[in-house]
Amino acid sequence: MVDNGTAQSLSLYSLSEFLESAVNAAQKAGEIIRKGFYETKRVEHKGQVDLVTETDKACEELIFNHLKQLYPTHKFIGEETTAACGTTELTDEPTWIVDPLDGTTNFVHGFPFVCVSIGLTIGKTPTIGVVYNPIINELFTGIRGKGAFLNGNPIKVSSQTELISSLLATEAGTKRDEETLDASTKRIKNLLFKVRSLRMSGSCALNLCGIACGRLDVFFEHGFGGPWDVAGGAVIVREAGGVVFDPSGADFDITAQRVAASNPFLKDALVDALGQAV
Amino acid sequence: MVDNGTAQSLSLYSLSEFLESAVNAAQKAGEIIRKGFYETKRVEHKGQVDLVTETDKACEELIFNHLKQLYPTHKFIGEETTAACGTTELTDEPTWIVDPLDGTTNFVHGFPFVCVSIGLTIGKTPTIGVVYNPIINELFTGIRGKGAFLNGNPIKVSSQTELISSLLATEAGTKRDEETLDASTKRIKNLLFKVRSLRMSGSCALNLCGIACGRLDVFFEHGFGGPWDVAGGAVIVREAGGVVFDPSGADFDITAQRVAASNPFLKDALVDALGQAV
Repeated sequence: MVDNGTAQSLSLYSLSEFLESAVNAAQKAGEIIRKGFYETKRVEHKGQVDLVTETDKACEELIFNHLKQLYPTHKFIGEETTAACGTTELTDEPTWIVDPLDGTTNFVHGFPFVCVSIGLTIGKTPTIGVVYNPIINELFTGIRGKGAFLNGNPIKVSSQTELISSLLATEAGTKRDEETLDASTKRIKNLLFKVRSLRMSGSCALNLCGIACGRLDVFFEHGFGGPWDVAGGAVIVREAGGVVFDPSGADFDITAQRVAASNPFLKDALVDALGQAV
Repeated sequence: MVDNGTAQSLSLYSLSEFLESAVNAAQKAGEIIRKGFYETKRVEHKGQVDLVTETDKACEELIFNHLKQLYPTHKFIGEETTAACGTTELTDEPTWIVDPLDGTTNFVHGFPFVCVSIGLTIGKTPTIGVVYNPIINELFTGIRGKGAFLNGNPIKVSSQTELISSLLATEAGTKRDEETLDASTKRIKNLLFKVRSLRMSGSCALNLCGIACGRLDVFFEHGFGGPWDVAGGAVIVREAGGVVFDPSGADFDITAQRVAASNPFLKDALVDALGQAV
């Protein structure tokens, strides 16, 4: 519990406490997601859309209420709130950035890659990350400077050094105009010459966690929803020994809707390949 | 147990017994896969290649020995045996068709979509199917005329009727020549205009099971390894109310290394879309 009688310093002690609070919130939201996940197939299309919206909103409310009660001075950015109220500017204040349900298409279809993603930035730096897949019961956690874990066990990125032997993840995205699809499929074609194989799971946060635990070697995505897709996963990748960066090779910008991640050995090769693939 | 004193008729009783034998074999092989899956990340590249080969061979030997002891008159086709001894012709005899480890790239990388696939054809018709993912503990089973199950619970294909709302699965394949990649990425681009989203899991057998339990709506793949990738899954899809067919719309040919699957409503739309996508 937070002792409101003392000022919260951002010591490792506080960070551990923040993580615990985020894990508790994610697990409660996970119960709602799990329940909806097995229900979607039993309702007709209109009912599915409602179920997604309801689940999304219920989870975001639950997580925000849980964390606001504990940390009333912190800021909050959430996918649902942003959709309803417009963009919230990211400041240096401790800010919880939440995707209550990442992988909504998977959720509707019953494809088991869905998760809650909770990140805390301090000074705009991703500092706490929690990504929880309640369907296959995988809880990824990370605290800046304290390592990354899967269900409590330390994880690290792959040791792969050759792009040609690497497993790449990316996503088809949601835009369906000629120009976007032309660019993305051309990119995929050119990358397929340079990697072992390609996976598309439908969850940006889980792709980042796949990099963190070494299941995937390289990942990039353009045009995802917002900072909530990457705020949690970015800490987890870095604490697992990986790197998070802009697909151009520039520094990662959490607000840019562009992300790439890999182990440190593969970053340059991925940036080069992406540069040549356009 | 088989009563060797009586001739085996192919009654439902015998088929249930065949299924039970295949499930037992798949679960034993699954233990070997599970052990190797968590070891691959601890060995260097050369060691990983050996581990795949050893796991593949050990699983195929285990499954063949188990089934040959029970059914000495049956025929056997396996990925490993075929690689070592050349093609075995599929006859009308009861024939066990086995992929001891589907998703070998996933296995090496620790991506949790790997499975054992066991199919039994009688009169060349897929009749028994067992697909077991030992990592997330999902056992898909089917007997011709008796339904399809996931961990013992009945499953059915999705009720989706619109291609534009469908989740499509396909794979990037293993060929990396210009012509193949040109064709496959052009096909993907054209299909992306017509479906909701795309998943690539890296296991043909698990993609078929994804269709069977309604996680995926439409699936196609060209140029996979052989009949062992589809023999088990084909029964499971059909018994879940789905259809398995050639991507051209022609009848499914288990030896053709081309497959498509969907619920019955989406078949024509998928065939049309694939025809227009080349």
